[in-house]
Amino acid sequence: MAPVTRLVLDVLKPHDPGVVSFATQLGDLEDVDATTATVVEVDETVKTLRVTIEGDDLDLESIRAEIEDLSASIHSIDQVACGSRAVDDPWL
Amino acid sequence: MAPVTRLVLDVLKPHDPGVVSFATQLGDLEDVDATTATVVEVDETVKTLRVTIEGDDLDLESIRAEIEDLSASIHSIDQVACGSRAVDDPWL
Amino acid sequence: MAPVTRLVLDVLKPHDPGVVSFATQLGDLEDVDATTATVVEVDETVKTLRVTIEGDDLDLESIRAEIEDLSASIHSIDQVACGSRAVDDPWL
Amino acid sequence: MAPVTRLVLDVLKPHDPGVVSFATQLGDLEDVDATTATVVEVDETVKTLRVTIEGDDLDLESIRAEIEDLSASIHSIDQVACGSRAVDDPWL
Amino acid sequence: MAPVTRLVLDVLKPHDPGVVSFATQLGDLEDVDATTATVVEVDETVKTLRVTIEGDDLDLESIRAEIEDLSASIHSIDQVACGSRAVDDPWL
Amino acid sequence: MAPVTRLVLDVLKPHDPGVVSFATQLGDLEDVDATTATVVEVDETVKTLRVTIEGDDLDLESIRAEIEDLSASIHSIDQVACGSRAVDDPWL
Amino acid sequence: MAPVTRLVLDVLKPHDPGVVSFATQLGDLEDVDATTATVVEVDETVKTLRVTIEGDDLDLESIRAEIEDLSASIHSIDQVACGSRAVDDPWL
Repeated sequence: MAPVTRLVLDVLKPHDPGVVSFATQLGDLEDVDATTATVVEVDETVKTLRVTIEGDDLDLESIRAEIEDLSASIHSIDQVACGSRAVDDPWL
Repeated sequence: MAPVTRLVLDVLKPHDPGVVSFATQLGDLEDVDATTATVVEVDETVKTLRVTIEGDDLDLESIRAEIEDLSASIHSIDQVACGSRAVDDPWL
Repeated sequence: MAPVTRLVLDVLKPHDPGVVSFATQLGDLEDVDATTATVVEVDETVKTLRVTIEGDDLDLESIRAEIEDLSASIHSIDQVACGSRAVDDPWL
Repeated sequence: MAPVTRLVLDVLKPHDPGVVSFATQLGDLEDVDATTATVVEVDETVKTLRVTIEGDDLDLESIRAEIEDLSASIHSIDQVACGSRAVDDPWL
Repeated sequence: MAPVTRLVLDVLKPHDPGVVSFATQLGDLEDVDATTATVVEVDETVKTLRVTIEGDDLDLESIRAEIEDLSASIHSIDQVACGSRAVDDPWL
Repeated sequence: MAPVTRLVLDVLKPHDPGVVSFATQLGDLEDVDATTATVVEVDETVKTLRVTIEGDDLDLESIRAEIEDLSASIHSIDQVACGSRAVDDPWL
Repeated sequence: MAPVTRLVLDVLKPHDPGVVSFATQLGDLEDVDATTATVVEVDETVKTLRVTIEGDDLDLESIRAEIEDLSASIHSIDQVACGSRAVDDPWL
């Protein structure tokens, strides 16, 4: 299978754990090289994060399991990149 | 024939298979080096993806067959690049 | 004559042949190094493409003949660049 | 734990201490390499700053303690980046 | 005199000669290294082109004479750059 | 203390001294490497300048004293950067 | 005095002399390395130019004298940069 090198996820997260714990726990997963979590909306009980994860061979299911372990959930997948090199979306 | 080096496709995809499976299956095709799938719209039963595929010599028909095997369909072709080097659209 | 190194053409094309065939046929012309065709409008019977073509010494007339062979037509010329090096339009 | 390499914080700060003292005190924390504080809003009694902090292994709690020592508070966390390399949010 | 290295001209041109002939004829002038003609407006009898010309020592009068030989006219000068190196307008 | 490497100041300045004198006098301060003053508003008696100052170890108080010596005043501080390297604000 | 390395001037110029003569005459001044004149408004009797001048040690007064010799006048100064290196305005 072509390795997944970037995932951009829309994540709903309760206020606890905080964004830093959340990002570093994801960053601890085996194939994750880098994680950037941007807070895009703050509601009464949840935060919406856009989480960009890069690695050599990302596994969505272990990322999803970790996110759910952290009491959060993937609301939607915004972007998936895979292959032996990176290609940007020319319209973005 | 001048080899096709980039295709940007507007794809309608049912929610299953997921975007990651969809992108990696396309990424497994022989001449595909890199695939980036961006979700641009989510409706009740389908997702609209803008799929950017790069390779040395892409074959639209085998890509279309794979997309249809994945229960999805090419709604339209947004961009095609071909030749011995890449040229960007100066208006984009 | 100063060699033409880039042409950006507004092309009206019936739905058949498809954009990929159209771009690769243009890419097969002798002096064409790279072609990028972006679909800018889709109407009932025609597509409007913005076609960017680069090469060392492009010949508009052989490109126009090929476009007409493909049942399409040049609606307008958007940009022409020529000379021993490339210069960008500072307002674009 | 994956080291935190960038934090972007929304900070509410009384007018005293000034922005320069505030930024340099944060910059003095052990793992902080660089701090950029941008003033985004000035109200009667407080300033809202967007504070970007980079380092090899940032500790939010010692940063928060320092911010509170300076009579200010973290209103929200805008972005957290962690891992062995930096990844930018493609939508930003 | 400081040599002129870039001219950006607003040119009114009848539909004949075409943009390609027009650009290549300008590109044939002695001190012209590169010409990019962008079509900015098409009216019933004329096209408005923004023509960017670069060279080591451009001569406006020989360019104007060539433009008038081609039945076109300089409607206005949009930008002139001169000197031993290039400087961009920070507001553009 | 972490050295201040960039200050962006909003400055109100009477029409006299002129912007050039004003910028060069600031540029003469000991730790100032570079100063860029952009005029953002011109009123009847004052000009509003956005003044960007970079250096290895800037001292706000000596800059403020110089600004006041020049009959001007710091209206607000827009940005402060400090540390051993520069970090840009990702939202700017 | 910290040397002035860039001036951006708003200049009112009668239609005669033309923009090219105007720019090259400024470019002939001793410390001027590069001049870019952009026409920003054309009125019945005057043109408004934004003139960007770079050099190692620019002298506003000799530039102003030259501009007035050319029957034009400095309407306002938009930007002044000085120092041993260049710094860009982060808000521009």
